[in-house]
Amino acid sequence: MNITKRIQSQDIVSMPERYRATLFNSLSGFKSLALIGTKNAEGRTNISVFNSIVHIGANPPLLGMVFRPDTVRRHTLENILEEKQYTINHVHRSMLPMAHQASAKFDDDSSEFTECGFTEEYTSSGTAPYVKESVIKLMMHYRMHVPIPLNGTIFLIGEIIEAIIPESYLQEDGYVDLQKAGTLTVAGLDAYFSTELIDRYAYARPGVLPHSLANRREQSS
Amino acid sequence: MNITKRIQSQDIVSMPERYRATLFNSLSGFKSLALIGTKNAEGRTNISVFNSIVHIGANPPLLGMVFRPDTVRRHTLENILEEKQYTINHVHRSMLPMAHQASAKFDDDSSEFTECGFTEEYTSSGTAPYVKESVIKLMMHYRMHVPIPLNGTIFLIGEIIEAIIPESYLQEDGYVDLQKAGTLTVAGLDAYFSTELIDRYAYARPGVLPHSLANRREQSS
Repeated sequence: MNITKRIQSQDIVSMPERYRATLFNSLSGFKSLALIGTKNAEGRTNISVFNSIVHIGANPPLLGMVFRPDTVRRHTLENILEEKQYTINHVHRSMLPMAHQASAKFDDDSSEFTECGFTEEYTSSGTAPYVKESVIKLMMHYRMHVPIPLNGTIFLIGEIIEAIIPESYLQEDGYVDLQKAGTLTVAGLDAYFSTELIDRYAYARPGVLPHSLANRREQSS
Repeated sequence: MNITKRIQSQDIVSMPERYRATLFNSLSGFKSLALIGTKNAEGRTNISVFNSIVHIGANPPLLGMVFRPDTVRRHTLENILEEKQYTINHVHRSMLPMAHQASAKFDDDSSEFTECGFTEEYTSSGTAPYVKESVIKLMMHYRMHVPIPLNGTIFLIGEIIEAIIPESYLQEDGYVDLQKAGTLTVAGLDAYFSTELIDRYAYARPGVLPHSLANRREQSS
């Protein structure tokens, strides 16, 4: 028998802090998972793990991300505001568990690249370091940030100025096959998942039952 | 041989609009998937599909979401600003393809509940309609919204005032087993995925290799 729990505001207030963090990080659903690569003015590189990247728009191509008021990711925010550039690097199965390890609080004078065994990679589009081991990656240019007074977080928005994608994962209509690329998703603070496609559906219209795009593709190929 | 494509700003400008939307909606990585339930002052209910829900903080428990400057989700935003409440309902496999159909532009005088065959459900915590078919769901109280001048989107933040979770999916440490609950994730505009757990890792510390939480749990149970 499946008993359903109703958690209300009075229960939330009295929760132990760690339990509350684990619970509410789970409840937002599955999240994007990426390593953010930055470099400071002195050339010191940094990697942070982020699971709060969100699509803001395609024209111009904008992505947002949430900075918590903690110390671990302080270098990432400082570097972005200073250098105006950062990279977003998808995390794949072969990058675990070291992609998780990049969330540890390393000394100020060390780089997560060396601490976690990742390789810096550069293109002519920017000065921020890509993570070479990542197969889908984006060079971002800082556009704006908004402080969220409710809890001291910062919502930062950047524009994609370069996207690196192996051609075999890029379909005719612009869809990138993240499952084929091995991009992972994350739930809660520390649970990593691969994915299994159920279906793609055509643009929804009133009175027309959604038809499958994925099956149509299989039939026609 | 895997040829890598480098897409740069000059390529992005000249892309057909639909291709660009599909491409950049894919590049943010896997996304949360939920139906947002609202009701207006006259009691008319509404469901919208959202894939931009993001964790803002656990204390108080805050979630953000992005409203695009389109007409489909206009009722959701109007209803939230008017009534200050909305529900977030996880989407499970059995809710496809009708959860996708809820993204169609229905007439103003119809509700996605009836059009898509979902059932309204209410608790004493609020006036917004839950989607009964969803097994993990949240009652939200509006807290603030921020206009994003870069492209006319709105970033809206609400507080969780009630969480409904079957007890069998809620673990001792507060982690909610979304895979067991059948919560789906989405990529691009229209691709729906189930998930497969790779591992959970303990809190990362410098000099200590990440150890598995999921395997430890299996061994001790």
